Amino acid sequence: MNQTRQPIRSGMGRSTPDQIFVRGHDLVQDVIGKLNLGDMAYLEMTGRLPDEHQSRVFNAILVTLVEHGMTPMAIATRLVYLGAPESLQSAVAAGLCGMGTTFAGTAEGAARMLQAGWADNSSEDADALARNIVADFRKRGLSIPGIGHNLHKPHDPRTARLFEVATEEGYAGRYVALMTAIGQHAQVAYGKPLPVNATGAIGALCCELGFSWKAARGVAVIGRAVGLVGHLVEEQANPIAREIWLRTEEEASRQDETAVDTGR
Amino acid sequence: MNQTRQPIRSGMGRSTPDQIFVRGHDLVQDVIGKLNLGDMAYLEMTGRLPDEHQSRVFNAILVTLVEHGMTPMAIATRLVYLGAPESLQSAVAAGLCGMGTTFAGTAEGAARMLQAGWADNSSEDADALARNIVADFRKRGLSIPGIGHNLHKPHDPRTARLFEVATEEGYAGRYVALMTAIGQHAQVAYGKPLPVNATGAIGALCCELGFSWKAARGVAVIGRAVGLVGHLVEEQANPIAREIWLRTEEEASRQDETAVDTGR
Amino acid sequence: MNQTRQPIRSGMGRSTPDQIFVRGHDLVQDVIGKLNLGDMAYLEMTGRLPDEHQSRVFNAILVTLVEHGMTPMAIATRLVYLGAPESLQSAVAAGLCGMGTTFAGTAEGAARMLQAGWADNSSEDADALARNIVADFRKRGLSIPGIGHNLHKPHDPRTARLFEVATEEGYAGRYVALMTAIGQHAQVAYGKPLPVNATGAIGALCCELGFSWKAARGVAVIGRAVGLVGHLVEEQANPIAREIWLRTEEEASRQDETAVDTGR
Amino acid sequence: MNQTRQPIRSGMGRSTPDQIFVRGHDLVQDVIGKLNLGDMAYLEMTGRLPDEHQSRVFNAILVTLVEHGMTPMAIATRLVYLGAPESLQSAVAAGLCGMGTTFAGTAEGAARMLQAGWADNSSEDADALARNIVADFRKRGLSIPGIGHNLHKPHDPRTARLFEVATEEGYAGRYVALMTAIGQHAQVAYGKPLPVNATGAIGALCCELGFSWKAARGVAVIGRAVGLVGHLVEEQANPIAREIWLRTEEEASRQDETAVDTGR
Repeated sequence: MNQTRQPIRSGMGRSTPDQIFVRGHDLVQDVIGKLNLGDMAYLEMTGRLPDEHQSRVFNAILVTLVEHGMTPMAIATRLVYLGAPESLQSAVAAGLCGMGTTFAGTAEGAARMLQAGWADNSSEDADALARNIVADFRKRGLSIPGIGHNLHKPHDPRTARLFEVATEEGYAGRYVALMTAIGQHAQVAYGKPLPVNATGAIGALCCELGFSWKAARGVAVIGRAVGLVGHLVEEQANPIAREIWLRTEEEASRQDETAVDTGR
Repeated sequence: MNQTRQPIRSGMGRSTPDQIFVRGHDLVQDVIGKLNLGDMAYLEMTGRLPDEHQSRVFNAILVTLVEHGMTPMAIATRLVYLGAPESLQSAVAAGLCGMGTTFAGTAEGAARMLQAGWADNSSEDADALARNIVADFRKRGLSIPGIGHNLHKPHDPRTARLFEVATEEGYAGRYVALMTAIGQHAQVAYGKPLPVNATGAIGALCCELGFSWKAARGVAVIGRAVGLVGHLVEEQANPIAREIWLRTEEEASRQDETAVDTGR
Repeated sequence: MNQTRQPIRSGMGRSTPDQIFVRGHDLVQDVIGKLNLGDMAYLEMTGRLPDEHQSRVFNAILVTLVEHGMTPMAIATRLVYLGAPESLQSAVAAGLCGMGTTFAGTAEGAARMLQAGWADNSSEDADALARNIVADFRKRGLSIPGIGHNLHKPHDPRTARLFEVATEEGYAGRYVALMTAIGQHAQVAYGKPLPVNATGAIGALCCELGFSWKAARGVAVIGRAVGLVGHLVEEQANPIAREIWLRTEEEASRQDETAVDTGR
Repeated sequence: MNQTRQPIRSGMGRSTPDQIFVRGHDLVQDVIGKLNLGDMAYLEMTGRLPDEHQSRVFNAILVTLVEHGMTPMAIATRLVYLGAPESLQSAVAAGLCGMGTTFAGTAEGAARMLQAGWADNSSEDADALARNIVADFRKRGLSIPGIGHNLHKPHDPRTARLFEVATEEGYAGRYVALMTAIGQHAQVAYGKPLPVNATGAIGALCCELGFSWKAARGVAVIGRAVGLVGHLVEEQANPIAREIWLRTEEEASRQDETAVDTGR
């Protein structure tokens, strides 16, 4: 017998023959018919029921994350579904695997930067703090998470709306202020439009709601899982994966010299 | 050039520099701050905004699916996170892969059974239809999806609540009637309590909302993705995966003869 | 304490400070430098070291499964790697998820058909058995696993080679005979070339080596995992995922009327 | 039409009606019956057939990676299989997702350290280089990849055997020398046994064979995929996932105060 054995405990869910508890709340009495899915996600992640303000801000974050068009993850999900239509869940899983540093790490990175910023600094001055953060990222040659966008410039329309909702609900505090200030200082430092983008806004609002930066990627996963299921429902009605596959296979295996010579 | 090339089209999402559309709806104007995550899932899957009745029924389905305690999928998600904490999304993906026929196929199976039942039959009589369905499953030696539960008997408390919400919102129609009748006939045929369980109720309500049975597993995936993220947030604060691993490894590699004699 | 607790035992691997055992064999003394990867897979799956005949047949199966060009799974793997280059393992995982019924289930299906054929029938006559199997599949309207190929006709060149290797090693027994006879009867019954394809040959050889049909998909997974890693190494040197994504995204979000008119 | 479009090319695989080419080699003539799976992996990853020396070293690496007993990944794979036995491939995928920084990143990390070491330094002196590398890791407070082991001390028996095979085949060059020297200097610097472990040896041998450190994780994925399939074949014959699940669920949902008080 291992003497150092630790107990295994969890407060997520528990059942008796006639009751089910989710994080201490009675599923039948307090949840079904009363909470929406965003509120339920809040309960799962925090152990607390959101008030109406938290509910509106958190649902605003979540709905923003759902749909980003034909991303690499959405295409991968559709291709995997083509191969294994009996396992819809695995097709969603395959797409989720692609939510790494390239596309999905930035909300997490923004949240981490903001939490580190306020944690390391006793100052109440978001502007000074932002200046230091921008200078530090520049010095280390790293790109600043949560600012800049290929398409949405000079402004990301989602950011203004998310911050507006947060302001209406009393959740536009020091993290929103710091993220905004970072965008402004970056714009000056780099001499080009670097708007706070949607992932920057989401990172800031996750902080305002009290989430750890480590949980921010989980929030993104929830939103994206909804979106990938949506893509599969469209794929069921209007399949495109086979065409993407066949075109790619045909072109990839071409042997004509001109193409190889010129690189087109 | 391939002459039979098909166009690749999608109506999921589309962006211009200052607008983002999700299934034709303006994200900033119509979605953020207005829809909750369940409504957004409805929009993604159907292309339509839910009315307040559809919203309440669909959110009731979704929140019921989120948390089922320490399932094999939740344990797998935690173990994978232990190995790859830098890829939270892959840990959720790993758990989702386990949503197959054993646990998660039943809502889909129930929806399929109900849709086939009403499609194959011109009768308006749910009771006669249910009798035939039960007899057919018995004859083929197959278990009927959506009825019976190990723990929740004689009644699954979630079923009554889900059907209550559906009734309040005007969505307890012929699929709810058929599912209920199937439970009653099964109970008589098998001579034991076989309550309509939560997955049977969810299958019926997916039908009432107009979803194809093929989409029902997608609804389940959305709910469970939220739950698995919840488990990872608990794992971050109160890790148990390492203990599960070490205990299992220790016991699995034991070489004592008595255990080998009796164990396999 | 749960009275019905079962022991947890495994014979896969075990370590002491100076020895490692894999299925009872000393890794350092008996495996490293002596076994090739195919032999090791045989040891893992059967608990026995292959003799030279089994080694050659099993390695022939495995190498045939590795590379099938730009499949949907290979494309999905590359797209997921684009999103999460820090998690190469998850990109391989994503592609493996697509090895379902559409592409990868046929070796398993062929093995199952062949094992059921000989198990259900006391006859030693592969020809009569094959006739019955073909007739039965036709009657039920099901396609016969392991025969027919879009491109490789009238013969799949891999089949002849795999059966040649099996013959040389003394492993072309009743399963190879039955698979061959099924191909011949199917050709007559359907009046078109229906050669035994590579998956049919692999299914037959898995049976000859004594694998359960349930393990056949595992053999395919091993081969394909090697292939997907190969695709990622090419993707690292010569990336194409970004181009596939951008072209698909651009075309999918086009709004021109002609395309919409004809496309859906 | 996008003017900046790049061609999509791949040299992995290509087929005609009667021939299949893998990285330019004829599958039927040159591969089936001639190459073992490790050789095939080498061909896939490098585009070249290995000579007998490369074959022995690469297969030695691969077989070492296959089986590590009841790891978190092996347990996760078994649990996912319990939930989705119809999707064996997804269960393997789930386990692979756990091959991240905690367990599997070290071979990659060792290879990267060794390649950076020789790249940054014109010296031919492995000893001086090793001293600098150890000092640099200590200064930055980072653990050195590829050295130290919980169980296998003072020596990891796999390392000696892998380096022995490499020496026999003429592949124990400057990377093996550097890895060995790093182990020695670390032992002095930290004042405790820090043997080069199996992942350090594998990282060094991947470098000797000319693999980029970016490919090293792919080599590990190949080995581990074989091992996870092995675990599922054992699970089919001797299932343990259900027991792991039930024990964990039971203990996790216990509510008794004594357990919480004492931590057992």
